[in-house]
Amino acid sequence: MLLPYWLKNYKKSQFNGDLVAGIIVAVVLVPQSMAYGLLAGLPPEVALYSSVLPLLLYAAFGSSRTLAVGPVGLMSLMTGATLIELDISSVNEMVSTAHTLALLVGVILLMMRAARLGAVINFLSHPVISGFISASAIIIALSQIKHILGLSLPRGTPAYETTYNILTQIPQSNISTSLIGVSSLFLLWWFKSPLVSVLKKCKITDSVIQLASKSGPLVAVAIGTYLVYTLSLNTQYQVSIIGHIPAGLPEFILPNLDPNLIKLLLPNALLIAIIGYLESVSIAKSMASQKRQKIDSNKELIGLGTANIASAISGGYPVAGGFGRSMVNFSAGANSPLASIITACLVGITLVALTPLFFYLPKATLGAIIVLAVLPLIDIHSFKHALSYDKTDAFSLLITFFTVLIIDVETGIIAGVVISIGLYLHRSSQPHIAIVGQVGDTEHYRNIDRHQVKTDKHILAIRVDENLYFANTNYLEDTIMRLVADDKEINHVVLICSSISVVDTSALESLGDILYGLETAGVKLHLAEIKGPVMDKLKETDFIKRIGEESIFLSTHHAMCSLKGRTN
Amino acid sequence: MLLPYWLKNYKKSQFNGDLVAGIIVAVVLVPQSMAYGLLAGLPPEVALYSSVLPLLLYAAFGSSRTLAVGPVGLMSLMTGATLIELDISSVNEMVSTAHTLALLVGVILLMMRAARLGAVINFLSHPVISGFISASAIIIALSQIKHILGLSLPRGTPAYETTYNILTQIPQSNISTSLIGVSSLFLLWWFKSPLVSVLKKCKITDSVIQLASKSGPLVAVAIGTYLVYTLSLNTQYQVSIIGHIPAGLPEFILPNLDPNLIKLLLPNALLIAIIGYLESVSIAKSMASQKRQKIDSNKELIGLGTANIASAISGGYPVAGGFGRSMVNFSAGANSPLASIITACLVGITLVALTPLFFYLPKATLGAIIVLAVLPLIDIHSFKHALSYDKTDAFSLLITFFTVLIIDVETGIIAGVVISIGLYLHRSSQPHIAIVGQVGDTEHYRNIDRHQVKTDKHILAIRVDENLYFANTNYLEDTIMRLVADDKEINHVVLICSSISVVDTSALESLGDILYGLETAGVKLHLAEIKGPVMDKLKETDFIKRIGEESIFLSTHHAMCSLKGRTN
Repeated sequence: MLLPYWLKNYKKSQFNGDLVAGIIVAVVLVPQSMAYGLLAGLPPEVALYSSVLPLLLYAAFGSSRTLAVGPVGLMSLMTGATLIELDISSVNEMVSTAHTLALLVGVILLMMRAARLGAVINFLSHPVISGFISASAIIIALSQIKHILGLSLPRGTPAYETTYNILTQIPQSNISTSLIGVSSLFLLWWFKSPLVSVLKKCKITDSVIQLASKSGPLVAVAIGTYLVYTLSLNTQYQVSIIGHIPAGLPEFILPNLDPNLIKLLLPNALLIAIIGYLESVSIAKSMASQKRQKIDSNKELIGLGTANIASAISGGYPVAGGFGRSMVNFSAGANSPLASIITACLVGITLVALTPLFFYLPKATLGAIIVLAVLPLIDIHSFKHALSYDKTDAFSLLITFFTVLIIDVETGIIAGVVISIGLYLHRSSQPHIAIVGQVGDTEHYRNIDRHQVKTDKHILAIRVDENLYFANTNYLEDTIMRLVADDKEINHVVLICSSISVVDTSALESLGDILYGLETAGVKLHLAEIKGPVMDKLKETDFIKRIGEESIFLSTHHAMCSLKGRTN
Repeated sequence: MLLPYWLKNYKKSQFNGDLVAGIIVAVVLVPQSMAYGLLAGLPPEVALYSSVLPLLLYAAFGSSRTLAVGPVGLMSLMTGATLIELDISSVNEMVSTAHTLALLVGVILLMMRAARLGAVINFLSHPVISGFISASAIIIALSQIKHILGLSLPRGTPAYETTYNILTQIPQSNISTSLIGVSSLFLLWWFKSPLVSVLKKCKITDSVIQLASKSGPLVAVAIGTYLVYTLSLNTQYQVSIIGHIPAGLPEFILPNLDPNLIKLLLPNALLIAIIGYLESVSIAKSMASQKRQKIDSNKELIGLGTANIASAISGGYPVAGGFGRSMVNFSAGANSPLASIITACLVGITLVALTPLFFYLPKATLGAIIVLAVLPLIDIHSFKHALSYDKTDAFSLLITFFTVLIIDVETGIIAGVVISIGLYLHRSSQPHIAIVGQVGDTEHYRNIDRHQVKTDKHILAIRVDENLYFANTNYLEDTIMRLVADDKEINHVVLICSSISVVDTSALESLGDILYGLETAGVKLHLAEIKGPVMDKLKETDFIKRIGEESIFLSTHHAMCSLKGRTN
């Protein structure tokens, strides 16, 4: 039998860590996944179903040992937005559409694997991702305030409208709900940090501290549920509760495969797949590098793809690796995906036996759990860093951030990608062009504006710090012709190609034009330090025949020595 | 008074050339512009109006001495496609929409000047332009076959549908029309080349040969008109004719400024403006470089912008610099924009006095004029060249070509731009990374796979041939970590930055990760040949503080000498 890589060499000593981590993650996952279901506008059981089979499939096919797969904030937000876009009102239809969406996400991920398109996430720059995640976290947190305060607001409005709605409707808040919501927020915060300090002072062992501090959501859920039940807050004070969750394990479902529905869902499914993959891979990589393990991007696509298909056919919605839970898993000592299998079993037991306990669970508590989970994702540090290091990147970050907030998540991420690529191309369309001279008596040539160098008044040696391609050929041509026109003593131009790895067809034509222009002006063009792969392509061209082999030098120094004193 | 640059130093000796060129261009322009009007689906007088005032405005504000502005094939095709998209049936409404379109094109060009966005055309690579023009030429030629054969086909169908329609309807051709059309084609071809050889043998002076060979369209028009008139082909054999053209100079018109119409036209106007500007600038540049004159791209935007606004308010449609006529103007000896002013006056005289002569002009002759004018634009050489030099460029060319043919002109050019940028980014996302060694006893270091070099088994010196930015940071990180993992003897990694001009925020984070990864593996990272502008940005960062100043070397040689023998 083909066992997963981690099972072949499983050591008994690893089991303890896996068991503890599996239990702690389950304690976090059960309330959190119900909360994320709420965020996506789906019944809680859909989110719980997404927390069983997908975990097992990822354990079998994924490449990260510690990634905790399941419902996550971003995917829930995007799923919810997709369902709102389609304007579906019946809950049954929303649930069935969510299954189809998960299936599409899974199939897209597997197809990305087949077409070797995993590298597409390389085009999401860090600043764009940071702006996207920060803005999404704000949208997610804002969307939960209505649950925390017991308001009824329309779903899926842009962030500024949600804020406006909240501010104008605060007087209509439900007092009981608000009390539960705000106390839950306080309780969750207290478990996150002050409790740990207290326990540390009492010299409790680390794994107990871990378990205690991560059980905040479960404690909040227990207290909230107990209060609603004993005080009948749901009937007497209109506190919203979760209500009936059908008991039992998820059943096999064939998702709706209506071609029209698939066509409608496809663009969003593509984006959800890319974002889910991106999130999972970055988390997995950062954990793996700390333990010197390896992440195989291709395996990740298969792991996540099968996990999403598993979610689709077992009544769930799109899943990915979650940041918070993965960190819990990792720091609680998980050694292998066995931890996730244990988690999945515990969620399964919950589904079979414990769902009646959640009947009186107030939505305000779930809202508070989401808010506390996403707030750490608002990343001001990255913005400050980008601002001080590279204004262009800070600009991409801001554009993404505000487009997500003002328009929506999909437009925001597309705007971010377009802007960051556009700015990169703009930068490379006006490359840095340096005039260089000899440093002392070395064979080294550097920028005359920055170093003490020797030059020859008849030889213009210039270095272009960029590939030559369609976007910058005009700029290069204009610059060289201007430099030569400005200095009549120049007889030779040496183009130093050390930074040039690509010369495309447009640039080749431009080089021909430059050669022709210089010739008619009585100036000879030479090339130095052409890289191997570039020369391989150039050597068959007319351009190289016209410029002549004697004008092509291995190094700038060779060129300068050979041209010195020659007057054409 | 502020005179145009060329009028200040006008020399008497220039006048002769201007006069001859002005007359020859007018002889070409009058029939050609009526033909382009037909192509755009507009009455002939609209095209003639576009050939008066715009020429004067370009003469006043443009920067090319010899660019012949007026109706051109591409703009007429795109204008026609825009009118079909809007589904306008009344001729009056089409004409008024064409005025608005010209106004928008003019305003967009002036705004591009104001926002310094002229460089946007740099993102159209030569292969994309070539594919676009070739496919457009085929579409234009195909669209005229119905006029040449006297068929009635729907307008604006994709090229394959037009071809299918033509082939199935050939039996319904109008014999008289076909005879006129095919003989016109033959006559025009004969004037283009065999006539010139005959005249050259008779030792006629060059300017007379020029005039004679360029009067082909006029002769075809005269013969066609005469035949229709004397044989009453229009009434007896249903040959389509131009009909009544109102006499008199264009009058001032305020274009329709309905905001809804403007919103509808805007995307197409933007594309027409960019294509018109691109076409004009490339023609102007290629002529200017032959006479060592200069083209100022900013002035071109103003010249073309005002020409289009002039066209809009004098009853015309979008104009640009035409390739064919500019070449005629140039080779007929035009020295200054005075030639264009003479052309405009002659077109004006035609409008005032000669329009009745065109009543019986058969549309078949105009169709033939267009076909002969656009066929030379089909550019197979560029495709062959791209195919042999750079498959990627050949691919962009083909994608653009077929998208234009199969879908439409706008989609084609957008697809071309997206594909060429995507392919460039893809290429730069997997940069060439070379391991280098010392060439002989020089200070020069080159690729170990291509040169006979010396290396040190404890030092890995690698050169990355690309900027470090978001799209390739993962690739760099993976490559370095793999190289170090594969060779346990390596103690030092020297990253040679001679090709690196940009290190963006994402790449900076990646460098930090690489440094951390190497440190934990017991390997020290060093940088060599960092360029000035890159170092300026890096020196304030944590990364440089962590790597330490002693690990930053001016040249690879310094690095190698200093590290040799050190064992950490």
